[in-house]
Amino acid sequence: MEELKSLASVLLCVLCLCSAVVNGSDYVKYNTGAGVVAGKLNVHLVAHSHDDVGWLKTVDQYYVGSNNSIQSACVENVLDSVVEALRRDPNRKFVFAEMAFFHRWWVGQSPEIQEQVRKLVDASQLEFVNGGWCMHDEATTHYVDMIDQTTLGHHYIKQHFNKTPKAGWQIDPFGHSAVQAYLLGVELGFDSVHFARIDYQDRAKRKEDKSLEVIWRGSKTFGSSSQIFTNAFPVHYSPPSGFHFELTDDFDPVQDNPLLDGYNVEQWVNDFIDAALTQANVTRDNHIMWTMGDDFQYQYAESWFKQMDKLIHYVNKGGRVNALYSTPSLYTEAKNAANGPWPLKTDDYFPYADRRNAYWTGFFTSRPALKGYVRVLSGFYLASRQLEFLAGKKSPGPTTSALGDALGIAQHHDAVTGTAKQHTTNDYAKRLAIGASEAEVVVSSSLSCLASRKSGDQCTKPASTFSQCPLLNISYCPPTEKGIPEGKNLVVAAYNPLGWNRTDIIRIPVNDANLIVKDPLGNAITVQYVNLDNVTSNLRKFYTEAYLGQSSKQVPRYWLLFQVTVPPLGWNTYFISRAAGKVKRRKGFFLAADSPQDKTVEVGPGNLKMSFSRTTGQLKRMYNSRTGSSGAYIFRPNGAQPNVPIKIIRGPLVDEVHQQFNSWIYQVTRLYIDKEHAEVEYTIGPIPTEDSVGKEVISRMTANMVTEKVFYTDSNGRDFLKRVRDYRADWSLQVNEPVAGNYYPLNLGIFITDKKSEFSVLVDRATGGASIKDGQVEIMLHRRMLADDGRGVGEALDESVCVRDNCEGLTVRGNYYLSVNQLGAGARWRRTTGQEVYSPLLLAFTQEKLETWTESHLTKSTAMESDYSLPLNVALITLQELDDGSVLLRLAHLYEEGEDAEYSTLAKVELKKMFKGKSIKQLKEMSLSANQEKLEMKKMTWKVEGESGKTHSPVRGGPVDASTLVVELGPMEIRTFLLKF
Amino acid sequence: MEELKSLASVLLCVLCLCSAVVNGSDYVKYNTGAGVVAGKLNVHLVAHSHDDVGWLKTVDQYYVGSNNSIQSACVENVLDSVVEALRRDPNRKFVFAEMAFFHRWWVGQSPEIQEQVRKLVDASQLEFVNGGWCMHDEATTHYVDMIDQTTLGHHYIKQHFNKTPKAGWQIDPFGHSAVQAYLLGVELGFDSVHFARIDYQDRAKRKEDKSLEVIWRGSKTFGSSSQIFTNAFPVHYSPPSGFHFELTDDFDPVQDNPLLDGYNVEQWVNDFIDAALTQANVTRDNHIMWTMGDDFQYQYAESWFKQMDKLIHYVNKGGRVNALYSTPSLYTEAKNAANGPWPLKTDDYFPYADRRNAYWTGFFTSRPALKGYVRVLSGFYLASRQLEFLAGKKSPGPTTSALGDALGIAQHHDAVTGTAKQHTTNDYAKRLAIGASEAEVVVSSSLSCLASRKSGDQCTKPASTFSQCPLLNISYCPPTEKGIPEGKNLVVAAYNPLGWNRTDIIRIPVNDANLIVKDPLGNAITVQYVNLDNVTSNLRKFYTEAYLGQSSKQVPRYWLLFQVTVPPLGWNTYFISRAAGKVKRRKGFFLAADSPQDKTVEVGPGNLKMSFSRTTGQLKRMYNSRTGSSGAYIFRPNGAQPNVPIKIIRGPLVDEVHQQFNSWIYQVTRLYIDKEHAEVEYTIGPIPTEDSVGKEVISRMTANMVTEKVFYTDSNGRDFLKRVRDYRADWSLQVNEPVAGNYYPLNLGIFITDKKSEFSVLVDRATGGASIKDGQVEIMLHRRMLADDGRGVGEALDESVCVRDNCEGLTVRGNYYLSVNQLGAGARWRRTTGQEVYSPLLLAFTQEKLETWTESHLTKSTAMESDYSLPLNVALITLQELDDGSVLLRLAHLYEEGEDAEYSTLAKVELKKMFKGKSIKQLKEMSLSANQEKLEMKKMTWKVEGESGKTHSPVRGGPVDASTLVVELGPMEIRTFLLKF
Repeated sequence: MEELKSLASVLLCVLCLCSAVVNGSDYVKYNTGAGVVAGKLNVHLVAHSHDDVGWLKTVDQYYVGSNNSIQSACVENVLDSVVEALRRDPNRKFVFAEMAFFHRWWVGQSPEIQEQVRKLVDASQLEFVNGGWCMHDEATTHYVDMIDQTTLGHHYIKQHFNKTPKAGWQIDPFGHSAVQAYLLGVELGFDSVHFARIDYQDRAKRKEDKSLEVIWRGSKTFGSSSQIFTNAFPVHYSPPSGFHFELTDDFDPVQDNPLLDGYNVEQWVNDFIDAALTQANVTRDNHIMWTMGDDFQYQYAESWFKQMDKLIHYVNKGGRVNALYSTPSLYTEAKNAANGPWPLKTDDYFPYADRRNAYWTGFFTSRPALKGYVRVLSGFYLASRQLEFLAGKKSPGPTTSALGDALGIAQHHDAVTGTAKQHTTNDYAKRLAIGASEAEVVVSSSLSCLASRKSGDQCTKPASTFSQCPLLNISYCPPTEKGIPEGKNLVVAAYNPLGWNRTDIIRIPVNDANLIVKDPLGNAITVQYVNLDNVTSNLRKFYTEAYLGQSSKQVPRYWLLFQVTVPPLGWNTYFISRAAGKVKRRKGFFLAADSPQDKTVEVGPGNLKMSFSRTTGQLKRMYNSRTGSSGAYIFRPNGAQPNVPIKIIRGPLVDEVHQQFNSWIYQVTRLYIDKEHAEVEYTIGPIPTEDSVGKEVISRMTANMVTEKVFYTDSNGRDFLKRVRDYRADWSLQVNEPVAGNYYPLNLGIFITDKKSEFSVLVDRATGGASIKDGQVEIMLHRRMLADDGRGVGEALDESVCVRDNCEGLTVRGNYYLSVNQLGAGARWRRTTGQEVYSPLLLAFTQEKLETWTESHLTKSTAMESDYSLPLNVALITLQELDDGSVLLRLAHLYEEGEDAEYSTLAKVELKKMFKGKSIKQLKEMSLSANQEKLEMKKMTWKVEGESGKTHSPVRGGPVDASTLVVELGPMEIRTFLLKF
Repeated sequence: MEELKSLASVLLCVLCLCSAVVNGSDYVKYNTGAGVVAGKLNVHLVAHSHDDVGWLKTVDQYYVGSNNSIQSACVENVLDSVVEALRRDPNRKFVFAEMAFFHRWWVGQSPEIQEQVRKLVDASQLEFVNGGWCMHDEATTHYVDMIDQTTLGHHYIKQHFNKTPKAGWQIDPFGHSAVQAYLLGVELGFDSVHFARIDYQDRAKRKEDKSLEVIWRGSKTFGSSSQIFTNAFPVHYSPPSGFHFELTDDFDPVQDNPLLDGYNVEQWVNDFIDAALTQANVTRDNHIMWTMGDDFQYQYAESWFKQMDKLIHYVNKGGRVNALYSTPSLYTEAKNAANGPWPLKTDDYFPYADRRNAYWTGFFTSRPALKGYVRVLSGFYLASRQLEFLAGKKSPGPTTSALGDALGIAQHHDAVTGTAKQHTTNDYAKRLAIGASEAEVVVSSSLSCLASRKSGDQCTKPASTFSQCPLLNISYCPPTEKGIPEGKNLVVAAYNPLGWNRTDIIRIPVNDANLIVKDPLGNAITVQYVNLDNVTSNLRKFYTEAYLGQSSKQVPRYWLLFQVTVPPLGWNTYFISRAAGKVKRRKGFFLAADSPQDKTVEVGPGNLKMSFSRTTGQLKRMYNSRTGSSGAYIFRPNGAQPNVPIKIIRGPLVDEVHQQFNSWIYQVTRLYIDKEHAEVEYTIGPIPTEDSVGKEVISRMTANMVTEKVFYTDSNGRDFLKRVRDYRADWSLQVNEPVAGNYYPLNLGIFITDKKSEFSVLVDRATGGASIKDGQVEIMLHRRMLADDGRGVGEALDESVCVRDNCEGLTVRGNYYLSVNQLGAGARWRRTTGQEVYSPLLLAFTQEKLETWTESHLTKSTAMESDYSLPLNVALITLQELDDGSVLLRLAHLYEEGEDAEYSTLAKVELKKMFKGKSIKQLKEMSLSANQEKLEMKKMTWKVEGESGKTHSPVRGGPVDASTLVVELGPMEIRTFLLKF
């Protein structure tokens, strides 16, 4: 009876027109050439692959496709196959963002492939979006790093393809910053920025009133003069559900051959139109974008393009909607042509929650050690490039490029964020370390070179005698620890990367308490010794063994402190020698806690004073004995705090209050002579987990101030944004997480104000901060979790460090800085101190006879005219010699409009004085990333709802006169120049 | 202390030469152009994708890549991406086997891609191996089907690329047949055949004595004149472990960029050499083949080629071994050049066990309904092509091509084997049904056309009045069931596809017991009525509803039987009308069991007699009353059998013994007048599974013969091979499975002999058979299993049929045929009867007045000269008009050398007489698949161990004289011709 099957099937197949043998040709030339069609709903298909520059795998693993058991991903395949796919049809388009990956690929291609790619780029089939080295994070990144990594990528694109990216493509970062909008957007020449992640409540509201797409003005200072078209996706950066076409996806392909089973064109066309109409319902005008891609997709690009070809062909045959290959730029042009008006958006998109009780604010602090390392190297990279330029870039030879590459990668939104797997995080750190060690060589040799240049002519390449101590914070510094031979001096050179003269107290570990420190003129200066505390000793022992493999049981006995003064962009040299006999202990030397009969104790060698309770250990009062401004401060790391004994060390340069809160939290509060602020050094870890509870360690400071829910946090270390607890300007906030939902990212700091004063905290790295109660400020310093939070990384954030088999939770040491200022005076402290924190003095050590050294070296000098320094409201944020010998210069005004009565004004920099002994032959003002001349940049105009034609006119500097070479900068202005000397 | 990480990493990286920023170009042009290098170990990398023409998914699903949740597989991607990959490097090569897939792809390609592919084929970068429509099975396929499906593919290749495949590529079929070696190998012009699956014990032994590669002589008749180089892989058709490079595989890519992490070239080179040496240890001479592919691999071909490029480049740099892109043809050339001598292999590679207790012998029977359907349509396809040619192929119009395509696909080693998933099996059946229904139209219209051609001139295209009844076996035949109006006749045309005159008894369901059957001359002939039994009635009811959706409660009352005589390649017509009055019941009409007092009862209307025990129902004796040859037969379906009542029906044409063994096994034994054999019709099912035990139903026949472990089974319906129980000629068999390990595939039948007689069983479809005890023959008829056997299909073999929600296990009805012959006389019965079973009469029905019909139609005719028929030892196995009007003719000698005293001799066919009224203008003898002229075929010479230069000289026909056009055929010879008329 088997024959029976036959007839049933015949009946079925009368309908399906099956014919098993297909004769002739079924070739269909798909009409994929649709452009925008007026009057129809245009569906812009933007083909993209979201390629994290490290996350579950390292950047190199992602590139070559190794370690696929973790994640099947190979960016080499993406680029290989995209190029092939684009060549198959000139209408196909693809956008690519991450130049760290593109570069890895490009250098491995044959000249033929490179030529093909150039053609694809020229034909706008392959378009670079964003175009930075990575898709940087926006919460935990410093604006200088953002600029640097973007410049790296944009330079690459310009150099190889002569193109300037036009669209911001920040599709994955976990919230979006104001600085991103106006600075890393508009100032790059971007017309638009596109992203997926905004608060779920915000998104719901914006879908309802069709305000996902807005004109975003991220800067209070610049307002409408620095606005950008912003496209927040209605769902995610993946395609509408069912339109995923990765080779490995389980999808039913568009089957348009009626002679094969499963012909489904109508179904696909209907699904397409349904999905398009759904999106059109939450979108203004008749253009919608479909992000046709996802994480590490297009490994076999044809799999996507084949389906899209067919969809475009058949959907457009139907005529109801118009589907087209597009890019963010083309989409933005279409939006711009539609003429608005558009809703207005100000401020930023933080914090981000993807659903109720899921605020992504922990990552503001996650992996504080990595975040600290990135920030330290950011400042170091800035300084080392200055020295590289000042001494003249050497080729071949060590350069700062590897550090620039590593930092570029580290800005990725799964790198500095702390959201990558541990092995990937280790890879970031390794890359940074490699880059830093090469840059150290640059710094040492440049300093040697510059200092040895007594005659002022170009230095050649002297063998550097300097060495540096990146592990100074845990008292590891071999050149200062070893003995100083009779007749020799420990030579300490200090380089100041700031544009201003500065005075600082430096501390180095020594083993000798009979040292004399002399300035270049031979005058002995005041020193202070502080005994090395046990916490630091233990840290040093464990971590030098863990990281250097060196078991150094011997720890230095003292910290030696002395004050140095260094000119702008210059250096000074100090000489340390052993005293002939025993030096008499001076006042303040090893001073123990005094007057135990008092209930409170006051510390502070200068104007700033703090008084602590002897019984509880709590800070009771902090005030300036000169100005009288005051506040109170309580350190309460974890709930109710028992009394904490205090140990006080006093001296001529610093008073220190040491507090051991428990076995794994140690804090030193330092008040320096001549500083307006207190420096708090915390040492946290290993966070115990024996109780199976993960912990987040915060420092909470309470001031007796009426702050009315308001506090201020910085945007990427630049603008300060007003935050209101339990409130969002853009929608009526439903408060589900009263703590996590009020955390904001800090890169510079946080402050609160009342009618009289300001209380500010500056941080030394990316940190989460909040004001959960009026008068309070809290910052999260460390966290250790025992469970994954289900957002993809698949690991608990449980950092540990091992010496052989002995592993313990990671200990973090860092600083924050407290200041109480009169209302209106805080900005000045924050801006100036912020620069000092970001750009500490660079110290270099060697041993030499004082006389020998001074005879052959400039002991103190500056690259500027000796009487010149930058105005206090201007920072030099880039000074870098490029490969072609031209010099990249960026100057940044540090104050917002109205931030400070004196400094929020037009500032002037005299380039001629800035570069002593060098003559500027050419100056071109450039876009922020230096990939186009400022003059050539065009801005789209956009109508904003409720506005007539009025425009905001911020103060901006005028054109630079070629003869005077004076650069003017208005508040918040950053100006970028290419110079030829 | 975060800085600490840095230094540790630096230390690490001094060793790894990391540098984060890569400047310049890392482009490596891989040297992939290696050919064979003498004196080195040559590793032939054969890039392939094993693409099942249906298995877990249907052929179309595999092609387009739908239903990926079952298996991620898309052959369109394979071919798309392979073409791109081959174009990237002219040294890369790829082999492709399955033309059913290639054809689907080819017709959808643009002219540009087609041109590219032609170039790749011309450059031997893309090579077709095997080149059939599918990679056919070798156990359950009939040689005519194997030839047809291969011809389909080879014709396609020849037509589009003018190429002739040179290598057999049977990598996956589950054992290998003798016919494959000599017929579907050598006779196609193949120099070699390559495969993976041989018995695990055999493989172990062959690895030990390096005899995986052999010279295989599959034919006793042809011996060394039809031998082929045979390469059995040492493991499987996948690459050595660790060398899988599919995009989705978790492999560590060859990372040869020292500037990125994970440089691993040395490791890869070492692993490569290790794997090569391991294989070289089990291989003769210095060439080994690596099968670089697997099931549905190369979905993104570049993923494979990229790794292979690098491996070839770096391995060859090392110089220890030589890796090269190769193909089976190139490999075989290298082997041939090595000059041997090679071990000799005869017979076949059945049965196949992949490990202890895992004999793949169940599939010889799996899905007997599908196997039956394939076999029925195989014969029908042969016949319908004859008629299509005889009537003249119509274009446009229905053709037999769709059936050819469906049958081509059905020969796949997961199709007719029954090893595909159920939904795929349904798809095979559907395709067959579609093809069959179209061929039915061809048959009906051709018969109409031919019969209406009274004048003998070319018939035009008459509207066919004929209809056919493919469901006759379950009594469903509307044209015979309905009443015959007064004055009209039911016209029954019977077409005989054999080259010989034949006499057969046909049976049709009717509702009238008063019918008269007349031959074309108007003579009434003997008829017999048999009441429709209940089993058939119930089958009809359930299955017509299940498959046709028709609820036909009314079942016909009788079978009407009558004897017809039909000339070769011709037809005869019979006329059935209602008798005027009541016809008197004649003897034998509805005769019930007689003489109940006897212990045994004898049946048989002719010379052949059977006697049954009345008490047990067992067959006691079977003998020819004329010759006296005798045997005994017991049907014992499942262990010890209780007594089975017998019901006997006697008549002038047939005696029937009906036996209901249990509720789900029914058997009718029929002895026809004028036939030498008994026909057994079994109806098995639904196999009960309430006891949660799967069941395999066998029929076991016991003869009192001393067979000494020996039995004979056919190879693909052609040669008979001697089998010895518990023995293999090639190695010392370790018997673990005394039953399963002795099963062999049957397509024609099985027989045993003793010194006096032969006992033969012929089957109507592919079936497993064995002789487990001396004198016994058993065949497995049906199986239903409740668990998957873990070989990939992932489903239990648990076939069921549903009417709405009422599902039951599949019931199978089929026939087998028993004969007892004197020793030496069996072959004649087996060969002739085998042809009759394979090519039954085609019946077509219509109603017309006898006079009207006979006036306008030829009632009886033949395409041959009226006095001509083919010799009884020659079968016409192909007669087919091709699209270009030429005609493909295949003639097959049916006897092996020495098989029959009279018929194992040179036979002659007179083509002039064979084609009455047509003149042959051109005749070209071709290879078996007709893709090259026989004259042009070259054979490689091979040295065989222990042989000197002697050659076997079988009897073969000489060249065909163009004037006489007489074709000679030696034993087993198949000759293929292209004719032009």
